[in-house]
Amino acid sequence: MKQSHLEEVFNYVDKNADICLNQLKRLAAQPSVSAQNLGVKECADLVKEMMEASGFKVRLLPVNGGPPVVFGELWSEGARETILMYSHYDVQPPEPLDEWSSEPFRPEVRDGRLYGRGVADDKGILVGRLMAIRAIKDTVGKLPVNLKFFVEGEEEIGSVHLHEFVGKNKELLKADACLWEGGQRDPKGRPAIYLGMKGLLYVELRSKTASVDQHSSLAPILPNPAWRLIWALNTFKDQNERVLVDGFYDHVLKPSKKDLKMLQKIPLEEKDYRDTFGVRSFLRGLRGMELKKTLYFTPTCTICGFDSGYKGPGAKTVNPKEARVKIDFRLVPEQRTGDIFAKVKRHLVKQNFSDIEAVKIDAEEPARAPLDSKIVRVTVDTAKLVYHLKAVIEPILYASGPMASFLNELKFPISSGECIARPDSKIHAPNENIRVEDYILGIKHIAAILLSY
Amino acid sequence: MKQSHLEEVFNYVDKNADICLNQLKRLAAQPSVSAQNLGVKECADLVKEMMEASGFKVRLLPVNGGPPVVFGELWSEGARETILMYSHYDVQPPEPLDEWSSEPFRPEVRDGRLYGRGVADDKGILVGRLMAIRAIKDTVGKLPVNLKFFVEGEEEIGSVHLHEFVGKNKELLKADACLWEGGQRDPKGRPAIYLGMKGLLYVELRSKTASVDQHSSLAPILPNPAWRLIWALNTFKDQNERVLVDGFYDHVLKPSKKDLKMLQKIPLEEKDYRDTFGVRSFLRGLRGMELKKTLYFTPTCTICGFDSGYKGPGAKTVNPKEARVKIDFRLVPEQRTGDIFAKVKRHLVKQNFSDIEAVKIDAEEPARAPLDSKIVRVTVDTAKLVYHLKAVIEPILYASGPMASFLNELKFPISSGECIARPDSKIHAPNENIRVEDYILGIKHIAAILLSY
Repeated sequence: MKQSHLEEVFNYVDKNADICLNQLKRLAAQPSVSAQNLGVKECADLVKEMMEASGFKVRLLPVNGGPPVVFGELWSEGARETILMYSHYDVQPPEPLDEWSSEPFRPEVRDGRLYGRGVADDKGILVGRLMAIRAIKDTVGKLPVNLKFFVEGEEEIGSVHLHEFVGKNKELLKADACLWEGGQRDPKGRPAIYLGMKGLLYVELRSKTASVDQHSSLAPILPNPAWRLIWALNTFKDQNERVLVDGFYDHVLKPSKKDLKMLQKIPLEEKDYRDTFGVRSFLRGLRGMELKKTLYFTPTCTICGFDSGYKGPGAKTVNPKEARVKIDFRLVPEQRTGDIFAKVKRHLVKQNFSDIEAVKIDAEEPARAPLDSKIVRVTVDTAKLVYHLKAVIEPILYASGPMASFLNELKFPISSGECIARPDSKIHAPNENIRVEDYILGIKHIAAILLSY
Repeated sequence: MKQSHLEEVFNYVDKNADICLNQLKRLAAQPSVSAQNLGVKECADLVKEMMEASGFKVRLLPVNGGPPVVFGELWSEGARETILMYSHYDVQPPEPLDEWSSEPFRPEVRDGRLYGRGVADDKGILVGRLMAIRAIKDTVGKLPVNLKFFVEGEEEIGSVHLHEFVGKNKELLKADACLWEGGQRDPKGRPAIYLGMKGLLYVELRSKTASVDQHSSLAPILPNPAWRLIWALNTFKDQNERVLVDGFYDHVLKPSKKDLKMLQKIPLEEKDYRDTFGVRSFLRGLRGMELKKTLYFTPTCTICGFDSGYKGPGAKTVNPKEARVKIDFRLVPEQRTGDIFAKVKRHLVKQNFSDIEAVKIDAEEPARAPLDSKIVRVTVDTAKLVYHLKAVIEPILYASGPMASFLNELKFPISSGECIARPDSKIHAPNENIRVEDYILGIKHIAAILLSY
């Protein structure tokens, strides 16, 4: 990589910052809520159009039972290696709507931040990469690597069909290295690069005890589905956060010495985290290395939603006919979603809750890529150039994603790439946002990675 | 009472059945959801107008902090005794709206039933009584008793200000007997008359653990409010339906021999009940006298609503910032709402859940009136004339209401009066309904009570 090339590209990005931002606004304005099948197809078409504008040859690849994968190829004459870039065009549901300060699908800049559903996760990554490629092409002219651009439309509902899709398209997706979805800058601005992801098993437990809601005066003799769920859930996890499902911890690997070394270098700013989320203290009063070990290497059982009966203002005296709880289990290597789901179902039977139905909504396996690879090295080195701060390497991300489907089938090294979000980006929550500055730096980082590889 | 008078009045009611029905439709079309402050004032005005049309001198009596009481007086020359009639013009929230087959506030007759929020509870009672009075006046011409018509607007939110109101207006409300809200016909059509009501303590428990919703990947280290509520609730009631709050059963009276005799005569059609609500079996497999004793004489702790996090379709991986549960405690003589609420708060502290806030939403004391009174006797005797079935006497209603406020202050005998609802009337639930035939019979019953008293 020539230093002059890099400067030329960076200058181009700065000059065209408004265009870069407007392109992201354009994509973020298109709803694409996979959980609600809202605008997903329209978004795929728009992504295709935007990828073509950056020079890709693009196809919408049909996915059995799911939204299409937008797949683009950009061959560079003389380039010997190929990088596959992963991102997704779907977003989380915007609810609760009344907590947004601006419309979730009408992106808006306020005080240097861009607000809108998906700007951090994952449309900023997607558009930023297209802008980086355009910057290189409009300045240096030629990319030193071939690119494959893989954009799926159901990441937020667990990439249900991705595993099968990757297995069937190994040749098409073959590459020498992979840039995954980007990471986050920590509260001090340090970019983080991650080498793996936790798994995710998302389950809904449903109790239905009657065909109609009843006046609650009948409660002495009629069953109550919310109570059924409460008693059942109480057998799932104790107040020390220990999951009580038989065999839940069977395949959990302890962090290795290398892992612990990486953990030690992760500067988790405890007070910043607590302030960002408005919590008084971490669970069980955790601090320091114990806090980090728990965050990165502990599997969880989390209630994401509980719904039963009357939820409006005041009182309604009703004995509800049904209750539902959404639970997310984050899994660590070498747990497996199928095994845990089977154990959850067995647990319900064993604890005399076979009247409660367990429905699997999502499943993604945990994944880990090696630390020692060219793509990781280049990502780390160029991060220093762009952010003027040393990158932090996370052995595994505490969030989940479909990385395992790629890792297991395609066996390429992976790095997470640029960082446009921060802990206060409110990913998955109302008022999702990124700093415009972080978005522009992310574009520069990707450009630097591609030029340096 | 002359037999010819009764026939004349009954004929009048039959001839004017359409008018009676249309008047009810008119009132039911006016929303009056006290929990949501929706249309309540407008409904009070309409009730006043309709009472005036039946000859009452009507006043809207202001209630400190609540909707007005509509109070009417109808003096009959030469009449020696006065009956006070209680009803309410407010209704339960119509939610969930998508389970209604027709609009909740657009009453509609289908297959002989009138559907609409409030037609059973309590607008059918209210309008039916006005129609009965009109029938007597338009035929016989003169009522043998004086009437006081008391219609409150916050029964469905626990008659919060009623107790104070009654205490301040004892002279105004003085009467020789009282007809309470009507009862129900059982699945075989038998009318039921009740002599008391359970108390109600409606509480909301709130857990707030953060200032914003978080990505659920942070769940290893951040608290979850739904788990807090689940662990807390699990300490409130065990799977045998035993409430575990210290001292909860302290003041519960055992049913007397007289009570048990009445219970024995109550023909609770178990299969009909199960079919109506679509339940496989009653709680704890209860049957026969044990079922009835439990229904009438056991206090409860019922979850009416649970709300936390994401409740839409599919998956949203969020660690919610707060969770709320609505609990209704039905109390029996001689429990007291203030005592139980204090015990609930103490329980939370004792069980290490002082982070959970308890908010009192409603409170009504349990009430019991004597079996031996003229008003009960007349109600029972005339029921036979109208329904051609022997009335069933319930020692206490398993539902709640503000009867205690009247009983304790005014000390008059009470009977519940006519029966226009049935167990399948879906009171408080979607598709609330009454049979048009029951409504007309109810009008005749009230007319017969007034003529016979």
